[in-house]
Amino acid sequence: MTKKILVLPGDGIGPEIVAQARKVLDKVNLQFDLGLVFEDGLMGGCSIDAFGVPLSDETLARAASSDAILLGAVGGPKWDKLDRAIRPEKGLLKMRSSLQLFANLRPAILYPQLADASSLKPEIVAGLDILIVRELTGGIYFGEPRGIRTLDNGEREGFNTYKYSESEIERIGRNAFEMAMKRNKRLCSVDKANVLEATVLWREVMDRLAPEYPEVSLSHMYVDNAAMQLVKAPKQFDVMVTGNMFGDILSDAAAMLTGSIGMLPSASLDKNRRGMYEPCHGSAPDIAGLDVANPLATILSASMMLRYSLNHAAVADAIELAVSKVLDQGLRTADIMSPGMRQVGTAEMGDAVVAAL
Amino acid sequence: MTKKILVLPGDGIGPEIVAQARKVLDKVNLQFDLGLVFEDGLMGGCSIDAFGVPLSDETLARAASSDAILLGAVGGPKWDKLDRAIRPEKGLLKMRSSLQLFANLRPAILYPQLADASSLKPEIVAGLDILIVRELTGGIYFGEPRGIRTLDNGEREGFNTYKYSESEIERIGRNAFEMAMKRNKRLCSVDKANVLEATVLWREVMDRLAPEYPEVSLSHMYVDNAAMQLVKAPKQFDVMVTGNMFGDILSDAAAMLTGSIGMLPSASLDKNRRGMYEPCHGSAPDIAGLDVANPLATILSASMMLRYSLNHAAVADAIELAVSKVLDQGLRTADIMSPGMRQVGTAEMGDAVVAAL
Ligand SMILES: CC(C)[C@H](C(=O)O)[C@@H](O)C(=O)O
Ligand SMILES: CC(C)[C@H](C(=O)O)[C@@H](O)C(=O)O
Repeated sequence: MTKKILVLPGDGIGPEIVAQARKVLDKVNLQFDLGLVFEDGLMGGCSIDAFGVPLSDETLARAASSDAILLGAVGGPKWDKLDRAIRPEKGLLKMRSSLQLFANLRPAILYPQLADASSLKPEIVAGLDILIVRELTGGIYFGEPRGIRTLDNGEREGFNTYKYSESEIERIGRNAFEMAMKRNKRLCSVDKANVLEATVLWREVMDRLAPEYPEVSLSHMYVDNAAMQLVKAPKQFDVMVTGNMFGDILSDAAAMLTGSIGMLPSASLDKNRRGMYEPCHGSAPDIAGLDVANPLATILSASMMLRYSLNHAAVADAIELAVSKVLDQGLRTADIMSPGMRQVGTAEMGDAVVAAL
Repeated sequence: MTKKILVLPGDGIGPEIVAQARKVLDKVNLQFDLGLVFEDGLMGGCSIDAFGVPLSDETLARAASSDAILLGAVGGPKWDKLDRAIRPEKGLLKMRSSLQLFANLRPAILYPQLADASSLKPEIVAGLDILIVRELTGGIYFGEPRGIRTLDNGEREGFNTYKYSESEIERIGRNAFEMAMKRNKRLCSVDKANVLEATVLWREVMDRLAPEYPEVSLSHMYVDNAAMQLVKAPKQFDVMVTGNMFGDILSDAAAMLTGSIGMLPSASLDKNRRGMYEPCHGSAPDIAGLDVANPLATILSASMMLRYSLNHAAVADAIELAVSKVLDQGLRTADIMSPGMRQVGTAEMGDAVVAAL
């Protein structure tokens, strides 16, 4: 039985980092006879250039019929002047929404080999391993009504709607509880229930789910406090679950705690665990094509894909081990370089992971 | 000419830290013949206990007729089970909104004497001095419609409205540009214009104001990136301006970068610079009445009050110098204690500042 993977290299450094992940996937595909079949597609700026839209219906249809999607990164200054409706990000948002990829898993892990990279003191972040579960298809990102209107007094007003229904909260809540079950069984739900009604309901639903997962200890935290606690004592967290907007902010802050965002993968899953996988970092147009980008976040995204959508946990483990080995060997791309290590380019790093498999 | 100050000690540690700020204000009032007249009032849990509401109309009226308000902190577990409509925070929100205290100034300063307190590496935060200007009476905090409703399919939905009009953005924008003029002339406006229309207008208005302040260099940053950059390289910022919700999150993260949130004051100003002044930290009910809380944030809030609402910049300077002297003397409350320093209680710290004046 074959599994179809749609590969969307995207813009900027996307193509070169995705090429390394492909090398790794090709290797394990052969090695473990996984039956993976790859197709390429366009999303983001490259799709705007080719088709005039950031995500064509044809690419979306191919995505919908795939078992998983591997994405590089989208966007760049070239498309920043375009009308907002057809900017590269809109392709990403359309993909998430159309395929109902509601569960965004964003791990923030500090690799022991890269402990120095963090801007935080070693004792604060050593051993950091947080999983942020972000709701990805609802909340203020997609709430209607939205827009810019003219008020009676003649001035304009920009407006958006933040909303969550019980069923939306429940499905992301269950996902987070299940993730917590597989980890250290602590779940912190982040809201702003002292101000926002949308999150009052959020908190209520989380509390209602808790008895179904008696082994998980559920806590609640206001988003402002969560931002503070991430800076002060991030190791207090195991799994955090929150809405789309708060998740966007907190997961980036958490990723940056590690100091090596070039190492962090992410998954966006639907209810059947089909999903899109991409590195946490962006398309870094300033270093595109220079063979200096770090491909490890994309390689680790491929590993997440094998684990979550393709049911090959052992192969995922093997890739993660290979990445760890390469770090042990002292190989570093520019973004994670430190004294005494050996600096390598994008392709050489990809080759090293393949060799370590 | 006398100036009326309404003092709202609030809950938890509020009364004891405000008492220290009062000592300092009494001292400078006499020393410099400032003509300050003080009145006490209730807001928060203490007001719920006395009047059944977190902010009575009578207290609000007295606030409206004052030249400035000094607040301790509100809230505590005692009132957490109450109906949301009458919780302590609602008093705070009502005060902000009724008096149109739209400009929330939240400095994040690392005192050189407390450099070790930060969870970040010294080289990342040494000399940190950021001012966050947060819009405080609009955005999703106050947007209508809001609530929890039942959908056609029978399930409930929580919803809030995020909105900003041009005039609301303009007034906070001007405030931020003016603050930047008095500092290092760099202003970073934080939004999520790649997703939220409310912040597309925000960005447009900031750009429109920029030519009126040609000496200020204006930049824009997405909120997720801003959260990352605060962790990675906070010293890149001078003044940041943003909406109510993003400001709540980012200002708390920025405050925590210093590691000594017990040192940070805040001001909430109306268009005539009348305002409410309060420490950034909360009411810390767990240590209330134990004479261990740090009164310096409240004392520095009193100093901000003299500077912004009462036009006594020189007196404000004197208080800030006195605080710095006390730190130089090695006095520390428990929250900022470090080896070799002398630990003192709340009252002794207040006395020390008075003595240093
Ligand atoms: C590009 C942008 C629309 C996107 C988001 O805000 O979701 C990005 O920041 C992310 O986190 O994947
Ligand atoms: C208590 C709460 C309503 C308040 C807010 O969110 O504005 C607080 O967090 C603050 O920042 O002053």
